[in-house]
Amino acid sequence: KTDFKIAVLPGDGIGPEVVNESIKILDAIAEAFHYKFEFKYGLVGAEAIFKTGNPLPDETLEICKESDAVLFGAIGDPAFDNNPDAKVRPEQGLLKLRKELGLFANIRPLKTYNSLIEKSPLKKEIIEGTDIQIFRELVSGIYFGEKFTDEEVGYAYDICKYNRDEIAPIVHMAFQEAQKRRKKLTLIDKANVLDTSRLWRKICKEIATEYPDVELGFMFVDNAAMQLILNPKQFDVIVTENMFGDIISDEASVIGGSIGLLPSASIGNENAMFEPIHGSYPQAKGKGIANPIASILSTAMMLDYLKLDHAAEKLKESVEHAIENKYVTIDLNAEQPYSTDEVGSFIADYI
Amino acid sequence: KTDFKIAVLPGDGIGPEVVNESIKILDAIAEAFHYKFEFKYGLVGAEAIFKTGNPLPDETLEICKESDAVLFGAIGDPAFDNNPDAKVRPEQGLLKLRKELGLFANIRPLKTYNSLIEKSPLKKEIIEGTDIQIFRELVSGIYFGEKFTDEEVGYAYDICKYNRDEIAPIVHMAFQEAQKRRKKLTLIDKANVLDTSRLWRKICKEIATEYPDVELGFMFVDNAAMQLILNPKQFDVIVTENMFGDIISDEASVIGGSIGLLPSASIGNENAMFEPIHGSYPQAKGKGIANPIASILSTAMMLDYLKLDHAAEKLKESVEHAIENKYVTIDLNAEQPYSTDEVGSFIADYI
Ligand SMILES: CC(C)[C@H](C(=O)O)[C@@H](O)C(=O)O
Ligand SMILES: CC(C)[C@H](C(=O)O)[C@@H](O)C(=O)O
Repeated sequence: KTDFKIAVLPGDGIGPEVVNESIKILDAIAEAFHYKFEFKYGLVGAEAIFKTGNPLPDETLEICKESDAVLFGAIGDPAFDNNPDAKVRPEQGLLKLRKELGLFANIRPLKTYNSLIEKSPLKKEIIEGTDIQIFRELVSGIYFGEKFTDEEVGYAYDICKYNRDEIAPIVHMAFQEAQKRRKKLTLIDKANVLDTSRLWRKICKEIATEYPDVELGFMFVDNAAMQLILNPKQFDVIVTENMFGDIISDEASVIGGSIGLLPSASIGNENAMFEPIHGSYPQAKGKGIANPIASILSTAMMLDYLKLDHAAEKLKESVEHAIENKYVTIDLNAEQPYSTDEVGSFIADYI
Repeated sequence: KTDFKIAVLPGDGIGPEVVNESIKILDAIAEAFHYKFEFKYGLVGAEAIFKTGNPLPDETLEICKESDAVLFGAIGDPAFDNNPDAKVRPEQGLLKLRKELGLFANIRPLKTYNSLIEKSPLKKEIIEGTDIQIFRELVSGIYFGEKFTDEEVGYAYDICKYNRDEIAPIVHMAFQEAQKRRKKLTLIDKANVLDTSRLWRKICKEIATEYPDVELGFMFVDNAAMQLILNPKQFDVIVTENMFGDIISDEASVIGGSIGLLPSASIGNENAMFEPIHGSYPQAKGKGIANPIASILSTAMMLDYLKLDHAAEKLKESVEHAIENKYVTIDLNAEQPYSTDEVGSFIADYI
């Protein structure tokens, strides 16, 4: 297959700017490798609320369902951040999209770049050589369990629930990834307190018998939050439930020194979505200073997913070339910064 | 009042060794300030399971209830850590104790010591001058909501629930502490996803009107997990729910460079418990290398709680004196380490 339908959801803030660079890259890839990418744009997030009242219009969902993959920018706008009581919110669009597309596995690769290691708040000797892959369950747990609030009394609850079918697929995925890597998988949980965590442990242990070459370990989430900073190199592949994954993966993002570099993939059985892990960063909107690399590396993950291995390799190589040559935005090189557009073009030209 | 009943629960691993040093300190304080401390010992944790089958024997609970304050060591033993399926577990003793004594507020002060700043995995310029006080709700939330597992089907849930009476007291406490400090309070929550978090926000905002001199801010837990590492100095007082507090406070413990220094207080309306945040560290048991300072600083928090302000000040001063003079255990000074007992005696003698 050489012909692909890509749904493009630029979203809010710097989302459109960084996604633009990804499109530029895909155009360059199409030319170099003789593929065809057909782009269909959809509204999502605050932008969608402003224009339609709905953070995920049906039309957007349709475009995504008919696509081979989804490129996502970012969501969030000060109009909502400063008004936590707003009933309709940009995040709802993202959460609904994950659920509707069945994107059960959120994957975040984390590694350090030699030329950027000084940027990290952590010491060089702590982070040098870190290479972690986090698998976060994305469509269940406390995010999607029943919720309830009694405003009058002042009482609320959220239910965290999991069943085997929600746990097993991502655990298999994580084991398979570990097999391709350093063969170490760590389940992060709170099995000394939570029944759902004990279920995760049990299922992980069962599945482990199918991957005898992978060493399975367990770590409580509170300890993991420490260990990620004290000694990140001890981790290879991590698998965890939705809420712990949200916290742990954002925490781990500080290791590399710039959140502007970190891509993510959200994978389901029928579809997949690729998204920089940084947010909409509204302060930077329209200034041409946003770092496009997280979005571009997300695009590389998309090429991997579409099995366009050569293109994916070439793109990753081009990004490393830009980073090692300090052809980067102001967040990574304050002395001689390049614009969003310049960095994107530099990488596209190298392809 | 100059006469106090102290319940002493040494627990497992290095617990007894570090608590011993606290007792030594309290004896020195009693002599110097003419107080009387009466110590009653109770079993808890793995030790208690081995001897009685119960991680919190009734007798221990009685001793605690009749005391003015509880000194706690640590719990946990390899027999259980390596067997996560054990039905009776040391942690249950700790959780039950918190609940039975109504210890709703877990307080963890975090600051950096100049002479130890190099020990942190974080860079000096990031952490220098950090001074944070974390208030974690300790007897509600997902820890104590209903739990359920259907082993057959492979299904489990945990309920996170909160009501106003569980939230308001600790929020008041945190505001009052902020008033005595830099007048900044941050609620850490996940109000873009959880109903319970939205309830926390609402109640915090209501209570804020009673403390107009304190600036109240909100931060999502995923972002907070990043910000604590990127820029810990931005925080003054933090308040948060039970599970987020567990994760965030352990994460934050890496800032100072040694978990062996960090004390905690768990406060209720009728009683209070003081406990180093490090665990039972079984590998170090009986070797005389455990750092007693976390336990000793927990004892200082106990003196504060008992309103023995002069004694508390003197004790904190003595600890700083030991640290600044590198009269510390091997974890903090590998070249010229002192033993647990030597560090305790050095501090006691200074009093
Ligand atoms: C925006 C928010 C609902 C979302 C989440 O918590 O999943 C975000 O933090 C993320 O990690 O993608
Ligand atoms: C031992 C465990 C149940 C406990 C908790 O999660 O509260 C511990 O991690 C703590 O923070 O005191």
